[in-house]
Amino acid sequence: MYRDSNIRSIAKGISWRFVATSTTIVIVYIFFGRLDLAIAAGMIETVLKVALYWGHERVWFKIRWGRKRIEPFNLWFTGLPLSGKTTIADKVYEELQKFDIPLERLDSKDVRELIPDIGFSREDRNRHMHRIGHLIQTLQRNSISTVSSFVSPYRESRKAIREMVQNNIVVYVKADIETCKTRDINGKYERALKGELQNFVGVNDIYEEPQHAEITIDTDKMSVEDASELILKYIKNNFTV
Amino acid sequence: MYRDSNIRSIAKGISWRFVATSTTIVIVYIFFGRLDLAIAAGMIETVLKVALYWGHERVWFKIRWGRKRIEPFNLWFTGLPLSGKTTIADKVYEELQKFDIPLERLDSKDVRELIPDIGFSREDRNRHMHRIGHLIQTLQRNSISTVSSFVSPYRESRKAIREMVQNNIVVYVKADIETCKTRDINGKYERALKGELQNFVGVNDIYEEPQHAEITIDTDKMSVEDASELILKYIKNNFTV
Repeated sequence: MYRDSNIRSIAKGISWRFVATSTTIVIVYIFFGRLDLAIAAGMIETVLKVALYWGHERVWFKIRWGRKRIEPFNLWFTGLPLSGKTTIADKVYEELQKFDIPLERLDSKDVRELIPDIGFSREDRNRHMHRIGHLIQTLQRNSISTVSSFVSPYRESRKAIREMVQNNIVVYVKADIETCKTRDINGKYERALKGELQNFVGVNDIYEEPQHAEITIDTDKMSVEDASELILKYIKNNFTV
Repeated sequence: MYRDSNIRSIAKGISWRFVATSTTIVIVYIFFGRLDLAIAAGMIETVLKVALYWGHERVWFKIRWGRKRIEPFNLWFTGLPLSGKTTIADKVYEELQKFDIPLERLDSKDVRELIPDIGFSREDRNRHMHRIGHLIQTLQRNSISTVSSFVSPYRESRKAIREMVQNNIVVYVKADIETCKTRDINGKYERALKGELQNFVGVNDIYEEPQHAEITIDTDKMSVEDASELILKYIKNNFTV
């Protein structure tokens, strides 16, 4: 969050003076036909009014009226492990940072420092999602938008998030399970298929497809750039960024 | 966080016009000695410049230069259970809300929804503090100040918080253990003394007194109101609120 500095108010006063004094000189010249006097009046006005403008700005900073609260949103990326959620979410986050909005990136790996991953059972996952919902609420109370990417395989936990946060935008990152497997450089799918990893979504745990996603990205057909563009367009159409 | 609305810019244009046009009329009158023409010039100027001022404001909103980031602080209340941390912190939070700064209240009971209390051993407590430090960091990245109250009995965890966050202000809420016991309406001290509660700070767990607290409140000698006033004074002297 930012506050206007004193020097900014002075600079605004000067830049406004260029616009305003030129106008005054033209008006006075039209009325009196004396360019020399018009310019002299303009000169005096210039000095006097830069100071007045500065004072005017400072008084207005004390007045809250007419300041609109920035409305935060939550982009919620869901999808199978290795479907491309994080990659697309990172790209969207990068693009959104160019705008002047308060923004946080939440990813399963990032929130582990903050909220311990308590397990992979259905109940544990739901409880974890609930905690993330609380975190987003805290951020949203302070107008901070979020770009969140979590496997979030269960409908009930995604529903809980939707009920907890405002302006929730579910982005379903759809990828064929075979595609995900080919992207699996760490061999996680393989280990899960061998039974070495339990509760691995897509192999021995279910992924319930979203039925009400605001945006669906078919990663088999769409590039990361195109997906990011599509999502940014949605944000621009629905929010002031 | 807030954004200036269009109507605010128009209102500023109008209020500025009162100041500016009166000045113009006086200057033109002094130069030309014709009040009628001076007023007429002022009239035309008024209409034209309200519109120009509005445009000038909107252009400046796009310019980031000269906007100072609001510097967040963290008030960290530490002290024995029932020393009065929460009461004083609540009061300070209430008072700080009157200022135009982004602010969050963090208390052991509030963060439980977000970060599960993982236990009361020394190691568990330190890990918990570390998570709270991460939360404060996330909030501070977004200029949000915090009013935090936690028993935080160990020097090492308070030191960790100090190293993690910016503008950390330790408020040591000092109370005689006998005073704390008289405040104990839920009988927690009693249960701890009976050995029913383990790791209860002040009874069967140590409280390491802060050595570098910015503010020390002796609750045996100072009322909640006076303590709150003292803390607010410290904030006002050190930060822009």
